[in-house]
Amino acid sequence: LGPRVTRASTVTIDPLAGFPLVQEGDDLVVGIIESAVANGVDLARAQVVVVTAKIVSKSEGCLVDLATIEPSPRAARLAELTEKDPRLVELALRESRDVVRARPGVLLTRHRNGFISAMAGIDRSNVDGEEHHALLLPPDPDASARAIHEGLRDLVGTPIAVVIVDSHGRPFRVGNVGTAIGIAGLTALVDLEGEPDLFGRPLTTASKVPVADLVASAAILVTGEAAQGIPVAVISGLPPEWLAPPTDAASAPSAAHLVREPALDMFATPDRDYS
Amino acid sequence: LGPRVTRASTVTIDPLAGFPLVQEGDDLVVGIIESAVANGVDLARAQVVVVTAKIVSKSEGCLVDLATIEPSPRAARLAELTEKDPRLVELALRESRDVVRARPGVLLTRHRNGFISAMAGIDRSNVDGEEHHALLLPPDPDASARAIHEGLRDLVGTPIAVVIVDSHGRPFRVGNVGTAIGIAGLTALVDLEGEPDLFGRPLTTASKVPVADLVASAAILVTGEAAQGIPVAVISGLPPEWLAPPTDAASAPSAAHLVREPALDMFATPDRDYS
Repeated sequence: LGPRVTRASTVTIDPLAGFPLVQEGDDLVVGIIESAVANGVDLARAQVVVVTAKIVSKSEGCLVDLATIEPSPRAARLAELTEKDPRLVELALRESRDVVRARPGVLLTRHRNGFISAMAGIDRSNVDGEEHHALLLPPDPDASARAIHEGLRDLVGTPIAVVIVDSHGRPFRVGNVGTAIGIAGLTALVDLEGEPDLFGRPLTTASKVPVADLVASAAILVTGEAAQGIPVAVISGLPPEWLAPPTDAASAPSAAHLVREPALDMFATPDRDYS
Repeated sequence: LGPRVTRASTVTIDPLAGFPLVQEGDDLVVGIIESAVANGVDLARAQVVVVTAKIVSKSEGCLVDLATIEPSPRAARLAELTEKDPRLVELALRESRDVVRARPGVLLTRHRNGFISAMAGIDRSNVDGEEHHALLLPPDPDASARAIHEGLRDLVGTPIAVVIVDSHGRPFRVGNVGTAIGIAGLTALVDLEGEPDLFGRPLTTASKVPVADLVASAAILVTGEAAQGIPVAVISGLPPEWLAPPTDAASAPSAAHLVREPALDMFATPDRDYS
């Protein structure tokens, strides 16, 4: 009995270097296409374009002038506890359903869109010029991904999946990984349960592959987090079946499929009353 | 001010397909080299070889005959709570420092080596032939990685980093990702704190890049979890500075650098007394 090889493609991750700084109203589809040409990347052969949430937010005008933000008493209390700017805490609370943990230097919340992250993804680094502004995540990243997906299809002529990536910390481990917060044209999650293993025994537990998160995290290898100015990566070589996601409303691609249901989450319960 | 592009390499992830089934005593270095040749992958140009923990365990003889395992009373209690085989629970407890969560179907522990995972990484799928055996993780995966690293260097003539990957679930999100449990020749973690962002402002928080985990998770895109029989991936195109890790004892590559210190971990505390 030899191993059954079902695929053996090389996966490639191409950075789109030299991407222009993005301003509100910029057309990311055009930017991606022009940058791909400049980088010698053939989008017609690409499977997935991974786009950092930051440039999606900028193009959608999610920059907030902190002078316009009046912290609530709750934000003021949590700002004192976390030693953060009360206006940023106010914004984070507006973006979130719940506070999960608050400590000096740390405010972890469950975002309106379901995922748990620091400060609801509000970003002050690499925000153009102004010290007094903060950048929120795009309000509906799945919709943002779909818009880019459709724009690329119209201009390139082939379907190219889109993943919007934000970098998230991890409870048990150090460092941030890429997390898919918006998805179009790519299967979010593959459930292998019941498929045979190498010896024909069905896989039973722990057999879900978070395809979109793996793709998002792989892209972080080239987009990085610091001064690199590489906000887009292009990925190819994935199993083709991942690029043909279901289209019915219940199982169509959405980053929501990757969030553990709160009732089944053994760790996300707030450790105290943060109201 | 245009973007400062610091690198623009394409990252490639090559699966080593057709890898022979591994038995105790097999020389993985020879297997990797032969398989790379068969797959047309030039190891002399490779940066990192990612090897699944499973084949490292098999080669090191970490297969345990469950008939030899006598569950302790604690294992029996936790087996009842988790609805798992008491002998597997006994093995998981022997491999672990602590139980972090136990629920029907779930036993999460902190492994002797520090990381938190399900069942201390004990594996029953794809374990050769026997229904009555379980495969433990290699006892010292950093040492295993170093042995493969040194073996490859001796035979290939160039330094090739090695990451041993296990697939781990995630507290807040669905699906398993690749986690580095053993590292040689690769920086485990890059700390960007204090480096300038695109606008010259220093990055302050959340600026650690868990290089080895990102590499491990990217490899999962080609090694998969099911019947694919692809236990090794070869990665190139990473920033060269990641391949020149510190060599002093305190900061030399180790998967331990990726584990959040228990005292700083806001989630890993056991939710009840599992003694």
